[in-house]
Amino acid sequence: MLRRFLKPTVSSISKRAASSIITEIHPENDEVAIVKMNAPPINALSKTFLAELELAIDTLEKDEDVRAMILTANRPGIFSAGLDIFEMYGKDKESLGEFWTQLQNTWLKLYKSPLMTVAAINGTSPAGGCLLSISCDYRVMADHKKFQIGLNETKLGLVAPPWFVKPYVSCIGEREAEKALYLGTLYSVDDALKIGLIDEKVDLKENIVDVALERAEQFLEVPDFARIGTKQSITRKDTIEWFDTIREKDVAVFQHIVSDKKVQGALGMYVQMLKAKSK
Amino acid sequence: MLRRFLKPTVSSISKRAASSIITEIHPENDEVAIVKMNAPPINALSKTFLAELELAIDTLEKDEDVRAMILTANRPGIFSAGLDIFEMYGKDKESLGEFWTQLQNTWLKLYKSPLMTVAAINGTSPAGGCLLSISCDYRVMADHKKFQIGLNETKLGLVAPPWFVKPYVSCIGEREAEKALYLGTLYSVDDALKIGLIDEKVDLKENIVDVALERAEQFLEVPDFARIGTKQSITRKDTIEWFDTIREKDVAVFQHIVSDKKVQGALGMYVQMLKAKSK
Amino acid sequence: MLRRFLKPTVSSISKRAASSIITEIHPENDEVAIVKMNAPPINALSKTFLAELELAIDTLEKDEDVRAMILTANRPGIFSAGLDIFEMYGKDKESLGEFWTQLQNTWLKLYKSPLMTVAAINGTSPAGGCLLSISCDYRVMADHKKFQIGLNETKLGLVAPPWFVKPYVSCIGEREAEKALYLGTLYSVDDALKIGLIDEKVDLKENIVDVALERAEQFLEVPDFARIGTKQSITRKDTIEWFDTIREKDVAVFQHIVSDKKVQGALGMYVQMLKAKSK
Repeated sequence: MLRRFLKPTVSSISKRAASSIITEIHPENDEVAIVKMNAPPINALSKTFLAELELAIDTLEKDEDVRAMILTANRPGIFSAGLDIFEMYGKDKESLGEFWTQLQNTWLKLYKSPLMTVAAINGTSPAGGCLLSISCDYRVMADHKKFQIGLNETKLGLVAPPWFVKPYVSCIGEREAEKALYLGTLYSVDDALKIGLIDEKVDLKENIVDVALERAEQFLEVPDFARIGTKQSITRKDTIEWFDTIREKDVAVFQHIVSDKKVQGALGMYVQMLKAKSK
Repeated sequence: MLRRFLKPTVSSISKRAASSIITEIHPENDEVAIVKMNAPPINALSKTFLAELELAIDTLEKDEDVRAMILTANRPGIFSAGLDIFEMYGKDKESLGEFWTQLQNTWLKLYKSPLMTVAAINGTSPAGGCLLSISCDYRVMADHKKFQIGLNETKLGLVAPPWFVKPYVSCIGEREAEKALYLGTLYSVDDALKIGLIDEKVDLKENIVDVALERAEQFLEVPDFARIGTKQSITRKDTIEWFDTIREKDVAVFQHIVSDKKVQGALGMYVQMLKAKSK
Repeated sequence: MLRRFLKPTVSSISKRAASSIITEIHPENDEVAIVKMNAPPINALSKTFLAELELAIDTLEKDEDVRAMILTANRPGIFSAGLDIFEMYGKDKESLGEFWTQLQNTWLKLYKSPLMTVAAINGTSPAGGCLLSISCDYRVMADHKKFQIGLNETKLGLVAPPWFVKPYVSCIGEREAEKALYLGTLYSVDDALKIGLIDEKVDLKENIVDVALERAEQFLEVPDFARIGTKQSITRKDTIEWFDTIREKDVAVFQHIVSDKKVQGALGMYVQMLKAKSK
C-alpha cells in the first residue's frame, strides 16, 4: 500500500493519457487493477480505443506491484458492442490494415498477458465484446435478463475470424461453437453459464467488480511463475504460436473482404440507419 | 414457387436418374430439399448408392434455388445400417479401392456442402449411418426406444477410420468418443441426446421432416455467404484440409486390411449368416 | 486356467523381481492382471519405482494370456502422491535426465499399452498420481470424502508438462483443464465424476478391484485387434507421435528448471519439512 504515496500510481498516469480507458488500482487490493472501458455509448472497438486498451494492459504488466486486472465497462449495460463500424466503412486498404493490425495486437496482449485477467461482464457483449471476454482467464457476468453474449458475426453477414473462434471453442466445445457460429447465437446469461461461456453469474444486487476481485485473489494464491508458465507455455501456447503464422494473411483477408463493394454497400446502409436513429 | 412450372424440378430429374436416392423439394419451402435414402431393407452404403447420393447432393448444390437439404430414410426403422458388406467380401483390390474412394467422395461432398444439411434420423444409425448423420450441420432423431446410433465398428472387429472419428469427437468430445469407440457403443436416443451426438429428439407423433424443416429455416435466417464461409473456412476447414493429406493412404490401408484372409473369413461367415436369415 | 500349473505365472515372477510393484493375476479371470503399487507410505514415483512399473507392464504385454490390467495401490489411502522429491533435490543434471527419461518411458508404456488398462483409484491421486490415472483406458475411484485427484503442480510452484496436460484435456475439456491448472485444483471424488476426470465412483463397501474387473470385462468383449487399433492408430495416435517430437527437449527443460537455485532452495525447504514431520 505504501507505494501509492511514493510514486505516481498507474491509475493517475492512465487517467491522463487515455480517455477511453480508465485504469484504477482496486482500493482493497493493490495487486489488482481495474480496467474500465469508457467509450460511450457502446464501447465500440475503434483503433484509438484498442490502442489505449493495449497501452493500459502494457502499463499494468510493467508495474511490478500489479498481478491481476479486471476488465469491465465503466457504465453497466453494454460491455462492448464489438468492432467500430466507422473503422470499416469508406476506409482505404491502408487504414483497414492499420485497424485490423491494432485489433490483433490488442487481442494478443490480452490473450497472453502474464497478468491474471478477469472479465467482469456488466452488460451485453456481442462479437468483439465477446472476444475480449473469452480472452480473459475468468469470466463473471451480471445476471440481467437482457444481457447477452456470443460471437454473432454471421447474423451481420460476416465470418468470425479463426482466432476469435479458437478461444470460443476452448470455452464451449467444438459442437456448441459450430452451431452457435452458424446461427449467430447470442446467449442469455443463464445459457452462457450452462454451456461454459461464462464461469459464473453475479446477482445484480452484488458489486460485480468485488466478485471479480474475490475470484482473482483465488488465482493469485498460486505463484505467478507457475500460473504464467502454464498459460504461456501450456494452455495457450499452441494458439499463440499458430496466430503468429496466420496474422499477416488474416490482415489481407480482412482488407479484401471489407473493401468489397457489396460489403461496403451493406455497411453504408447500416451507417445511415445509425445516423437516422441518433437524430 | 414459380420455377416449378418453368423448368424440370430437381425431384423429377432425380427420380428418373437414381432409384436408391429420391430427391424432392419440400412442399412448404422450395429452398429446402428432402433427400430420401431408398435402398431397402437397410440402406446399405454400396458403391452405387454412394455415387447416387453424391450426385443428388451435387445436383442440389448447383440448383440456385435450393439452400438446405434434409437427409432421411424413405422408410422409417433403419436410417442406414452402414457400409455394404458385399462391397468388401470377395472383391479384388481394385474394386475395394473404387468402393472406398466413392465413400470418401460422398462423405466429403456432404461434410463440406454449402447447403445447410439436417439429418432427420428416423431409424437406427450405426457405423456408416452414424457417419452420414454426424457430417450434417444438425441432427434430429425420432424418439423410438429401439433406435440406436453410434460408431460401433470395433464390435465387428473393425477400426473406425480417423475421418469417421473427427466429426464424432467434434460432437461428443474426446473422452466420450474414446470410450464409445473402445466399447463399440450404440447409444439410445436419450443417451445420444445427453452426450450431444444428436441435437434434438422428435416425438413419434410428430413428422420428423417437418421438424427438420423448422430447424433448417432457423439456420437459413443467416445469410448463406456467412454460414458457408464459417463452415468451409472456419469450423470444418482443418478437417477438410487434413483429409486431403491422408485420403490416398487411407484407401491403401482399407485395401490392405480388407484383403486380409482372416478378415475375408470373418466377412464370409457373416455373409453366410445373412443368406441363411433371408431364406 | 491350466497355464497356471504349466509355467511360472507373471505374478510369481514379478513378486520376486520388483518389490515396489506387485503383479497378480485376478483369481476370477486370468486374462486380467492386477498391478499393485507398493512403495509405502505414498507410492512416490522414484526412478526405481517407475522402472519396475514399466517392467511389470512390459511383462504383462508379453504374456499372451493377459489382455487387461488393473492399476491400484496395494494399501488404500494414497494411490500415488506423484513424483519423488528426492529424485529432484540435490541431483546433478545427468541424474535428473535419467529420472525424467524413465518417467517418460513408463508413461508412454502405460499410455499406449495394448492391454486394456483400468485405474482402480483407491486413494488420493495428485500430480504424477493423476497422470497415471488419466493414462489408463478407464477410471474408477473409491468414494471417500477425503480422496482427491488432479494435476495440482502449480500449487507447488511447478508447471505441469504438456504431455501431462494432453490426457487431462482429453478427459475434462480445454476450459475446465485451463482453470484447474491455473488454480492447481484437487477435485473431490464427486467433482471428478461430474467433470469426467473419473468414469465412475465406487462405494467404500464394494471391492474396487472387483468393480474394475467387471468394467475391464466389458471392454474385453470387443476383439483385441479392434480395440488396440483404435487406441494406437486413432484416439491416442496424435499424442503418441507428437510426444516423440518433444521428448528430448522436454528432458532438457526439466533439467534446466529443476537445476535452478531457487527451485532447489524451495525443494530443500520442503525436504526439511518432510524430515521434521517424520521424526
